[in-house]
Amino acid sequence: MQTKQRLIVDMDGVLADVYSQFLNMEEAEFGIRQPLENLLGRPEREVFKHERNYVLTKGFFRGAPVIEGGVEAIRELDTKYDLFIVSAAMEFPLSLPEKLEWLKEHFPFLTWHQFVFCGSKTIIKGDIMIDDHFKNLDFFTGKTYLFTQPHNYGQDDKHHTRVSSWEEIRKILL
Amino acid sequence: MQTKQRLIVDMDGVLADVYSQFLNMEEAEFGIRQPLENLLGRPEREVFKHERNYVLTKGFFRGAPVIEGGVEAIRELDTKYDLFIVSAAMEFPLSLPEKLEWLKEHFPFLTWHQFVFCGSKTIIKGDIMIDDHFKNLDFFTGKTYLFTQPHNYGQDDKHHTRVSSWEEIRKILL
Repeated sequence: MQTKQRLIVDMDGVLADVYSQFLNMEEAEFGIRQPLENLLGRPEREVFKHERNYVLTKGFFRGAPVIEGGVEAIRELDTKYDLFIVSAAMEFPLSLPEKLEWLKEHFPFLTWHQFVFCGSKTIIKGDIMIDDHFKNLDFFTGKTYLFTQPHNYGQDDKHHTRVSSWEEIRKILL
Repeated sequence: MQTKQRLIVDMDGVLADVYSQFLNMEEAEFGIRQPLENLLGRPEREVFKHERNYVLTKGFFRGAPVIEGGVEAIRELDTKYDLFIVSAAMEFPLSLPEKLEWLKEHFPFLTWHQFVFCGSKTIIKGDIMIDDHFKNLDFFTGKTYLFTQPHNYGQDDKHHTRVSSWEEIRKILL
């Protein structure tokens, strides 16, 4: 039956550039754009003082840019893998329709069968997972790739393979 | 680490009484309430001519009654099992916030970590699944219970155990 490997791809911080949103909203509010050095190795909610307000703002998820190379990579990966986009979305009810619209806009070649919104990713079954959070990768039984984002900078362990761009993922998985 | 068995519970047709919604909406539209005999062993979209319109109507999912005994059973099962509510919701974007609000209203003792909205349930990992559709149970690797609903009436196979009420499930699982 299932012959393709199942590939689980995260949204925020892997496909959706939430840092752009945080930086832009903070700059709009305070007139200052934080330099990258401030963000490295620190959780988003520690770095952006109003982080909680921003993610609760209408349009935060809907308006996020796609991380460079994400669309083209997903298009190709979708032909080779049994691909699912899995996003932790339950904490913010407003984000549910926004995330679905975002996926339909930027990835029109995928179908709704391939989308999952959950609270905890411990319930997800697959062969390969790409995510920017250890809390998601640590519970996954398949092969795991840690997608570089400022918050996970410098935090490595021997269980996950770090990847820093969609170009790098293409070289590994395609 | 994980010692409790993971129990996966469906929403529509297991916790949410969607047939009540269909019957009520049809009666409001045509003035006639279909008798149960009409519904047995036939897909919802075959039985209710305007099924698609109804599920796309604002309030369809939000206003569904809870199937008898569902709240009390889930409250008890939640203490004994690692419980998740998993619903196929992606086909109808409007249903996403409605389903989340419905869960929060009727099951306030659960947390958002326990909710999953997906397109396909083939991605879900667990030990026990309760669902009213073969398409979901057939791909699950754990123990499966088919929850009786009019559409699955008379359709049995040797792979799934039929249960016809939450009272019956309590006797088996508690």
